Amino acid sequence: MDRLIEAIENAQNPSVVGLDPTPALVPPQVVASFADEVRDSVEDPAEIPAAQLAVAYFEFNRTIIDAVADIVPAVKPQIAMYEAIGPAGVDVYTMTCEYAQQQGLYVLGDIKRGDIGSTAAAYAGHLSGVANADSGNEPFDPWHEDAVTVNPYLGTDGITPFTDAAAAADKDIFVLVRTSNPSSKELQELDLADGGKLYERVADLVEGWGSGSIGRHGYSRVGAVVGATHPEEGAALRERMPHTFFLVPGYGAQGGTAAGVAGMFDADGSGAIVNSSRGIIGAWKKTGEYRDDMSANEALALAASAARKAAQDMRDDLRVNVYR
Amino acid sequence: MDRLIEAIENAQNPSVVGLDPTPALVPPQVVASFADEVRDSVEDPAEIPAAQLAVAYFEFNRTIIDAVADIVPAVKPQIAMYEAIGPAGVDVYTMTCEYAQQQGLYVLGDIKRGDIGSTAAAYAGHLSGVANADSGNEPFDPWHEDAVTVNPYLGTDGITPFTDAAAAADKDIFVLVRTSNPSSKELQELDLADGGKLYERVADLVEGWGSGSIGRHGYSRVGAVVGATHPEEGAALRERMPHTFFLVPGYGAQGGTAAGVAGMFDADGSGAIVNSSRGIIGAWKKTGEYRDDMSANEALALAASAARKAAQDMRDDLRVNVYR
Repeated sequence: MDRLIEAIENAQNPSVVGLDPTPALVPPQVVASFADEVRDSVEDPAEIPAAQLAVAYFEFNRTIIDAVADIVPAVKPQIAMYEAIGPAGVDVYTMTCEYAQQQGLYVLGDIKRGDIGSTAAAYAGHLSGVANADSGNEPFDPWHEDAVTVNPYLGTDGITPFTDAAAAADKDIFVLVRTSNPSSKELQELDLADGGKLYERVADLVEGWGSGSIGRHGYSRVGAVVGATHPEEGAALRERMPHTFFLVPGYGAQGGTAAGVAGMFDADGSGAIVNSSRGIIGAWKKTGEYRDDMSANEALALAASAARKAAQDMRDDLRVNVYR
Repeated sequence: MDRLIEAIENAQNPSVVGLDPTPALVPPQVVASFADEVRDSVEDPAEIPAAQLAVAYFEFNRTIIDAVADIVPAVKPQIAMYEAIGPAGVDVYTMTCEYAQQQGLYVLGDIKRGDIGSTAAAYAGHLSGVANADSGNEPFDPWHEDAVTVNPYLGTDGITPFTDAAAAADKDIFVLVRTSNPSSKELQELDLADGGKLYERVADLVEGWGSGSIGRHGYSRVGAVVGATHPEEGAALRERMPHTFFLVPGYGAQGGTAAGVAGMFDADGSGAIVNSSRGIIGAWKKTGEYRDDMSANEALALAASAARKAAQDMRDDLRVNVYR
């Protein structure tokens, strides 16, 4: 986790921008601007809408990344948004990750994978890359992720392949502990017979999974996902998991506040990174400046300036509340 | 679930072949045979090993599908094995799904996705496809899956988008309840304060999630993953979840037996489908007939005949034990 922590310190900004494009968050003229290019390159007409979204997503992401790269230490593309449009979307996911890394950003792939041991080992290829038999070659890294999110429901043998891959490649994982959504309480808050709640048991497992990989800043390679919508639980988890770095989703659009997440940081103002997706990449929709008759370039410029302003506001909001 | 149940009845075979290729399960001469083709088509030499595996996986899968299509009702490609080699692998995953559907097979995409509501809605694109604005057009279906597996840790709002998409597209989902791996007990067997174990609570949620979609054979669109390695728990879950169809992994290589899974079927011999992956697609390794100096075509022919024999043996094993 050292690379992420140092990137946060350099930016003096414990926030990450979620790159979660949807048809509603990308200005329609940007999508439309690729109509001719896509029509000429796609064989099956049925593929056109997905292919057009895919290229528009990449153009949009690149615009957002350029607008925030000197403000935030990291981005978090949510692979679901890309899978929604098929393999062409997955290509754009990896292109987005690669472009963000090229701009010096730490890339947190929000993939929430999880499976039994032998299958988890395959998913861990997200971190380890593909072996390259030619002597002297590094593994081929098709995903360009610095960390991925992982689901704990399968238990330790589903996690170990990820922690092994993370250690070998100087990368990290974040395990779901307490998610930000309303229904998370149905399982995660269940009271256990021998005391505590399910998410607390998961928290203890996560702290244990990281015990062998504590870095120079006191945090392990195994982080935890703790939703901003649970401020009190998050603060208690901060005490319970002293070597576990937190990824905190749910700020902004989902209702989490900087004051609410303050307790998820440690006494030095480290220990967590807060994500906002729609609040940054969809900020252009709330400026009052968007017009349907804008050109694609004008709409992208507005998306960029609005995202930059929103990312600065979030940074300043967190600085006031976290760097006490 | 009606389409799957009828396919099983037609084949008189409640088994599914897991299409989980790995570098160790595909004969090496098959991979080698694509060296020239890949070298000519890939721009970055670092991509060659992954690209070569990708085309070899498709050739291998096609061989297996052709060998078993008249024996089994369904195949279950495990997307992790494809993600392990990057976006080129994801392409081959969808090509495999499409080819299997073209051969009349029900395709169960083992993707184990799960996220908060708005993100789960994006993942549900696996079932719903991509909207196609041109009037009269069906949604574009890039994934070619008839069902997907889903992780329950996020709760109901992470499931509803999948059940909605399944209902709209006449497809199904299978939610992880009791997985086949050793570590599954760490969370899934936890005793809850108000009685029962965590996986039983998940089971009750799953039965509830399906209550609105019970088909003409008495099973809902929301199935459950119940490992073959837990015969007694599986039989108890069969009673507890009368409208929930089971996907049963862990037969064969993981230690599950036909006698052990018999209790996961209902009195009519329906209610479950049993998966074998390595036991079928890796059967060629146990024939004693494989030689390093075989040609790629000879190795594929051996893989086909061994897979066909193994699929027949599994079918017959299940028939004796299940169709009582």
